[in-house]
Amino acid sequence: MDLQVAIDRVTLDRAVALARQLDEQVDIIELGTSLIKDYGLEQIHAQLPKLRHAKLLLDLKTIDEGEYEFDKGFAVGDILTVMGAASPDTLTSVYELTQARSKQMFIDMMEITDAKTAQIVDHPDAIYGIHHAKDSRAGFDAAATVADFHAKYPAVKHISVAGGIDLAMAQKLATQGITESVIVGSAIVKTADPVAAAQKFMEVMH
Amino acid sequence: MDLQVAIDRVTLDRAVALARQLDEQVDIIELGTSLIKDYGLEQIHAQLPKLRHAKLLLDLKTIDEGEYEFDKGFAVGDILTVMGAASPDTLTSVYELTQARSKQMFIDMMEITDAKTAQIVDHPDAIYGIHHAKDSRAGFDAAATVADFHAKYPAVKHISVAGGIDLAMAQKLATQGITESVIVGSAIVKTADPVAAAQKFMEVMH
Repeated sequence: MDLQVAIDRVTLDRAVALARQLDEQVDIIELGTSLIKDYGLEQIHAQLPKLRHAKLLLDLKTIDEGEYEFDKGFAVGDILTVMGAASPDTLTSVYELTQARSKQMFIDMMEITDAKTAQIVDHPDAIYGIHHAKDSRAGFDAAATVADFHAKYPAVKHISVAGGIDLAMAQKLATQGITESVIVGSAIVKTADPVAAAQKFMEVMH
Repeated sequence: MDLQVAIDRVTLDRAVALARQLDEQVDIIELGTSLIKDYGLEQIHAQLPKLRHAKLLLDLKTIDEGEYEFDKGFAVGDILTVMGAASPDTLTSVYELTQARSKQMFIDMMEITDAKTAQIVDHPDAIYGIHHAKDSRAGFDAAATVADFHAKYPAVKHISVAGGIDLAMAQKLATQGITESVIVGSAIVKTADPVAAAQKFMEVMH
């Protein structure tokens, strides 16, 4: 199981410093939507050094104009996110573009109905990302949600999960064996020693 | 009926030049999602002069982390967009923030079900924006769609519509009298003389 660390709501300088520190420690470094909307892809591209070990995921949250956004995004990152709430035409066009570039696409499954989910689980190489809205006031059990999703959509090969994942939940998900990547934000980046925190997650997950 | 001109998929310099030219001609100037994701709010804020006449709408397409994005966005613009596909909690929190700041919120109704629509038409001061995905391969009749929406949700006071609006459709929408603002993109900004094109739209609409 891969560890994805989410960097968000910090200055670009801080994000670059965290990405450098964590590059050798984790599998995927995510730059959050706030960094893209606050600073823009051009500045991120100019200031972020090429990662040596981790893949770079940009949380674009594309919901329309898929080809334009993915074309710009793949000049910077390896994995881009698109909303499952986008139109099926948007999802199809970004999937085709992603396959043509040999890159990866991450579908954010937040706030979509079962009917819509059933319509869009037909992209075999896409990563399906399960989480609640950060704004949601409801609770979230990552392992139970992943198990439920897997039972309903057994054809989906690549599942990612996020949402208040702590060491105990990361270990539980690793043991469960369904999830391909787990996303951890503040439990790593908001600690006094993000490298040590990331190493602890890697230990319990492997 | 107000004219909103959408500026998108151009360089920031070009966007700033267009905004200056069109400020006195139109009611609302929209800076599209591509400008925000390519250049970031900080650069837009630094380079765009304060508009003298038109309101500035930023097409943030917020779908999560509503308070963070709206707080940042209102430092730059007068009207911000949020996706109807966001969680009801996100919509409620950005509505509250918008009301507290005496600003405006635009809910992008793209790709949501009737059931979800019924859940979120309870924000009386919000603008409800109707359009198809730009990536959609289906046709779109703006006047018929607006009439249908108004019949289903008569309590909604502020309706905006976009999608291939030409002069004839703008005139039809003005006569129909339901729509509060109409969004025009390439039919103004991709012409040789955007000011003259905007003036023609204003003439047929008033």
